[in-house]
Amino acid sequence: MAATAPWITYRPELKVLDCTIRDGGLINNHLFTDEVVRAVYDTCVAAGVDYMEVGYKNSPKIFPKGEYGAWRHTEEKDLERLFSDHDADKRGLKLCAMADAGKSDFKEQIVPRDQSKLDMIRVAFYAHQVSEAVEMINFCDSLGYETMANLMAVSIVDDIEIDTVLSAIAKTPAQVMVIVDSFGHLYREQVEILYKKYAGALEGTGKDIGIHAHNNQQLAFANTIEAIILGSNRVDATMGGLGRGAGNCPMELLLGFLRNPKFKLRPVLELLQKHIEPLRPTVKWGPLIPYNITGQLNLHPRSAMQFLDGPDCDNNVQFYDQILRDT
Amino acid sequence: MAATAPWITYRPELKVLDCTIRDGGLINNHLFTDEVVRAVYDTCVAAGVDYMEVGYKNSPKIFPKGEYGAWRHTEEKDLERLFSDHDADKRGLKLCAMADAGKSDFKEQIVPRDQSKLDMIRVAFYAHQVSEAVEMINFCDSLGYETMANLMAVSIVDDIEIDTVLSAIAKTPAQVMVIVDSFGHLYREQVEILYKKYAGALEGTGKDIGIHAHNNQQLAFANTIEAIILGSNRVDATMGGLGRGAGNCPMELLLGFLRNPKFKLRPVLELLQKHIEPLRPTVKWGPLIPYNITGQLNLHPRSAMQFLDGPDCDNNVQFYDQILRDT
Repeated sequence: MAATAPWITYRPELKVLDCTIRDGGLINNHLFTDEVVRAVYDTCVAAGVDYMEVGYKNSPKIFPKGEYGAWRHTEEKDLERLFSDHDADKRGLKLCAMADAGKSDFKEQIVPRDQSKLDMIRVAFYAHQVSEAVEMINFCDSLGYETMANLMAVSIVDDIEIDTVLSAIAKTPAQVMVIVDSFGHLYREQVEILYKKYAGALEGTGKDIGIHAHNNQQLAFANTIEAIILGSNRVDATMGGLGRGAGNCPMELLLGFLRNPKFKLRPVLELLQKHIEPLRPTVKWGPLIPYNITGQLNLHPRSAMQFLDGPDCDNNVQFYDQILRDT
Repeated sequence: MAATAPWITYRPELKVLDCTIRDGGLINNHLFTDEVVRAVYDTCVAAGVDYMEVGYKNSPKIFPKGEYGAWRHTEEKDLERLFSDHDADKRGLKLCAMADAGKSDFKEQIVPRDQSKLDMIRVAFYAHQVSEAVEMINFCDSLGYETMANLMAVSIVDDIEIDTVLSAIAKTPAQVMVIVDSFGHLYREQVEILYKKYAGALEGTGKDIGIHAHNNQQLAFANTIEAIILGSNRVDATMGGLGRGAGNCPMELLLGFLRNPKFKLRPVLELLQKHIEPLRPTVKWGPLIPYNITGQLNLHPRSAMQFLDGPDCDNNVQFYDQILRDT
């Protein structure tokens, strides 16, 4: 029998990152209004969230402006426009952006930290892109940024490749290595195995382990809790769970679980009501049946997203049959 | 590192119980059409589900006929009407009903098993009703039924009371004792503590431990998996998660996790599309914000259900403020 009840205490070092706009933008090409983006920012400040990931540093050559909204590129002029009054120390909130290996002109796009509103760059990469990721992390670190390393879609990466990635990331200045369940496929025993693998490989480096879960099987919050129990101090969540496909760990559930009194739930509920729920008629997300199925089968949510945008979007049996034929 | 991957194998003794109609009836007074109830039955057969809990054996004195549908009382004439062709052995599905301590005229309502379509009676009770529950279990056992013991709302029961209940149930012929998270409040460490407590108290009795989870915090499926990992071989789920308030562990997620090839997901998806989703305009369930909040606060979902039936049902901030004032 446990001698303590850790679920009613807290670790002060646990930090929450909001990635509503960054991850949510993958369903609407980042065509959010300024009002919504700023409301998420104000909510993060009021709720005690530690980081807000405001967008991607993706290349405008690959993601043309106009077709994609400002937060696909997260240029300084847009940061200045929306966050001219930002002060990380005063607000208790740091801003960050994600740079994808292979999709970012990072040497041109990322300016020194002292010329930016951003405090951190998260480098996202697939296993085969680890060398570029290391280069990006080193580059961003040399510009003064905090950095995090996000090995994506870990549920389809071979063990030996994960080990190789971990040993490469261990040598970088990245403060955090994130367990990223892009497909929403992982069960808790798998989270545990991955956590222990990451922790073993990074032992002695001082790096934290993060968790970024997707909600395909309604396990995003549960897997986030699991990582926290195991020792993770860096956790991702989004407002209303807004995010690609099934979405992410819902902030309103996470903050209801965290016992650090600095976190406040009420501002999040206000945001959901005023700004997030009204998006539903145009932006579809959440653990819908097609996402349940791709999650169960360890598949990219792409096919489910296409299906849900099509004319037969309510015919889940048809989607299931199609997926079984195709796999 | 684990030496095996239990999430891709299975335990043949693990049995699934569908309680869609029984638990779902708590949101609509069991006013389901015969067509829906029969469709759930046919789906259970096709999907390989082991038990279908078709309703309550509640007293018509407390729950008047007309105001409440047939499955609040589950009389033999209704079972005969809908399931005249039922044969547990041929179908691979057993029917059962729930009898609540304090709300059931069990001595009049429950006929000998050989005169009934039912194979099992689940006895549901609060901690203080354990003596009546023991009497009911013994009575149903003497009539030839399998029995299960459901101590409800375990998240608000004192440890010493749980111990007392377990030691009373240990002496009964009930085959299963169920961990019932009526308020959808439990986190996985709490499920683990309860499982170990139940297992310790029931050791040597041959009883199985069941899990009945509610989805207030989107943890019903995760907590069900957790119980399975720990050794639970009797698990409850409902079609589309339909059930009181936030609903239950969704069958479509559970069957996607179970690896026994006898379980089939497709019939469940068909049912959801044809019969369960169409209920949504009149029956409200799922992990909505008010249920998130009652789950987080370890409260009965009653206040959230009332709120969601009222004129301000979209004003979750108002509900949150009201709950904080009231607690």
